[in-house]
Amino acid sequence: MRFYLDHAATAPLRAEARDAWLEASSVLGNASSTHGAGQDARRLLEESRERAAVVLGCDPIEVVFTSGGTESINTALHGMWGSREPGAGTIVLPDGEHHATMDTVAALAAEGAVVQAVPLDSVGRIRVDAFADALTGAALATALAANNEVGTINDSAGMSAAAADAGVPLHLDAVAAWGHVPLSFRDLRADAAGGVGLVAMSIAGHKLGGPVGVGALVVARTARIAPLLHGGAQQRGLRAGTQDVAGAAAFAVALELAEAERATETVRLTALRDRLITGIRRAVPQAELLGDPVERLPGNAHVLFPGAVGESLLFLLDMAGVAASTGSACQAGVAEPSHVVIALGRSEQDARSVLRLTLGRTSSDAEVDAVLAAIGDAYTRASGARSATRS
Amino acid sequence: MRFYLDHAATAPLRAEARDAWLEASSVLGNASSTHGAGQDARRLLEESRERAAVVLGCDPIEVVFTSGGTESINTALHGMWGSREPGAGTIVLPDGEHHATMDTVAALAAEGAVVQAVPLDSVGRIRVDAFADALTGAALATALAANNEVGTINDSAGMSAAAADAGVPLHLDAVAAWGHVPLSFRDLRADAAGGVGLVAMSIAGHKLGGPVGVGALVVARTARIAPLLHGGAQQRGLRAGTQDVAGAAAFAVALELAEAERATETVRLTALRDRLITGIRRAVPQAELLGDPVERLPGNAHVLFPGAVGESLLFLLDMAGVAASTGSACQAGVAEPSHVVIALGRSEQDARSVLRLTLGRTSSDAEVDAVLAAIGDAYTRASGARSATRS
Repeated sequence: MRFYLDHAATAPLRAEARDAWLEASSVLGNASSTHGAGQDARRLLEESRERAAVVLGCDPIEVVFTSGGTESINTALHGMWGSREPGAGTIVLPDGEHHATMDTVAALAAEGAVVQAVPLDSVGRIRVDAFADALTGAALATALAANNEVGTINDSAGMSAAAADAGVPLHLDAVAAWGHVPLSFRDLRADAAGGVGLVAMSIAGHKLGGPVGVGALVVARTARIAPLLHGGAQQRGLRAGTQDVAGAAAFAVALELAEAERATETVRLTALRDRLITGIRRAVPQAELLGDPVERLPGNAHVLFPGAVGESLLFLLDMAGVAASTGSACQAGVAEPSHVVIALGRSEQDARSVLRLTLGRTSSDAEVDAVLAAIGDAYTRASGARSATRS
Repeated sequence: MRFYLDHAATAPLRAEARDAWLEASSVLGNASSTHGAGQDARRLLEESRERAAVVLGCDPIEVVFTSGGTESINTALHGMWGSREPGAGTIVLPDGEHHATMDTVAALAAEGAVVQAVPLDSVGRIRVDAFADALTGAALATALAANNEVGTINDSAGMSAAAADAGVPLHLDAVAAWGHVPLSFRDLRADAAGGVGLVAMSIAGHKLGGPVGVGALVVARTARIAPLLHGGAQQRGLRAGTQDVAGAAAFAVALELAEAERATETVRLTALRDRLITGIRRAVPQAELLGDPVERLPGNAHVLFPGAVGESLLFLLDMAGVAASTGSACQAGVAEPSHVVIALGRSEQDARSVLRLTLGRTSSDAEVDAVLAAIGDAYTRASGARSATRS
């Protein structure tokens, strides 16, 4: 038996999304072609864009389909930087952001951008007052709507309002959060005007049960964003390339389903997650939940196992059929301490002793039971393994 | 009835590629995750990379999966420019390249790159001697393996050898050519050494019967290419983002099938295409084939209809159920004269009077017959339409 507790890395493809992909992929035609076949493809594409816009809370023209979260984030940050106001020089980068953000900002810093960090509090939240203070003189700001590792939900509306007040364009990385917390682009922009405040929001399809390889960057009508991918004039000139009609159709279906089931799934997953956390603490009294205990993603349990090596825990759970993570899958395999855990004020040793267990649509009591059956022994051995490698 | 003569814009998805996508999309796991589920996904991904490498003529590690041709081209040019030798300043850009290339180079020119053009000859071919002359002092060069509009096949081996001699890294845009002409990355690099000569080659899946939204950039082991998409360390650090296992699996199958049937399809399509061209000339004696009459893509008929408006021809053929194009689909809908036709030394008026008819895997005699039945009348009316708009 296999027990999948790594929904944050990637979620199972929804049957409805798969069927939408299949149906759309049988429509022959490039959506940029003017003939009948092309226009059939175009209609399907624009219908998917409209459906996505409804649940994302934006106008259809504001939905730019991309190849996924990483491309969305790169496009937003690169594009906002490329269109910055003359003289505005800093990029506001909270600690503990996803590597797609950190590494893109690092590339911009190599081109002359000055990075303004914002510390996290001890549960991994971006403090809105600290964020607001950092906005002075900024060319752009970026922030996670919820932290993808420790699961803490940020105050996106507060950060958007602060950015609007400061006249700074803001990008929201909603890859981990969207579908799990209410995030309407329009509502979040309530205080924004023109090209400042929240102007762009990144989403990835495969985190929601859509296919890998498709995502969206929501870009406010009023925003100025230079393209990252050059070529054809597709999608407001913001993203060149033949448009993936089947991917967009599947993605739109996944977005709709994720939003439709959000309220009930939040209740179900929160209960399941809390049973998981309580059970882990019973099996391993030293274990400590990181991140905000209440204001966190419903499916996220991020646990510090003092003295244990996270990679060993992962391996031992895997032997018991349990798939988990020590952090972002994008960095998994690289045995580095989590920069997010360090940003919480923890030691490097603690940052190597964490496990992220994430639940989702297909999660059940049986999966929680599997973790609880294995974790006590795994902890004993992983702590021993650490001692052994030290001797 | 619908007759699809726009295979160069996008080709029908192959059933085998669709099935491979379906099968792979049921494998749950992020290929970057270290647990069993992730490793299953990883195995499938690497198997697809190996299969792609066999037909592309390269090592598996040289295959970088992307979201398609546009991303591949952007990554190659941006990355080669970002890793250029100090002091090397020009980008060798032949006339008549695809807009993904032209627009990326324009963006690099805005950052200080000097562009060195290479004229085409009257059939749209890049002359190797002119190309070689242009390489002096170049930071990088790029070239189409075959022109995507007029269909003329270039001397890729000759250009690669010239670039190797000159010590300049070369990117080959094989999006239109791959699968239609023999193009082995390894063979084309015969004269290359280190990071010069042919170092990168772009391919798009949907031109070959794979899904839209997946492609490859082949990058020589020895090449230095800075990443365009930043984030995780996936794919040699050259392309961050969760890897699209299902897309890669489907793409690999499409590549294999395209290569397996290339020889027989070349014979079949060449005969079909020549019947199409002969028939068009019989119906419209003024019509003139552009591009090289022999050394051209097997499925490509690119015809100048003197005095007719290409857009009108397109519309009238569409009314008869025939899907064609006036040029690249990426620019279709934008009523601009073809820059490729102008690069052949033709007038702007001629560049608005062309039709590209492209055949592929599913093309049959019936489709050729449909064009031949409609083209005479369409030409009469499209020429009239032009006179009408002038009066």
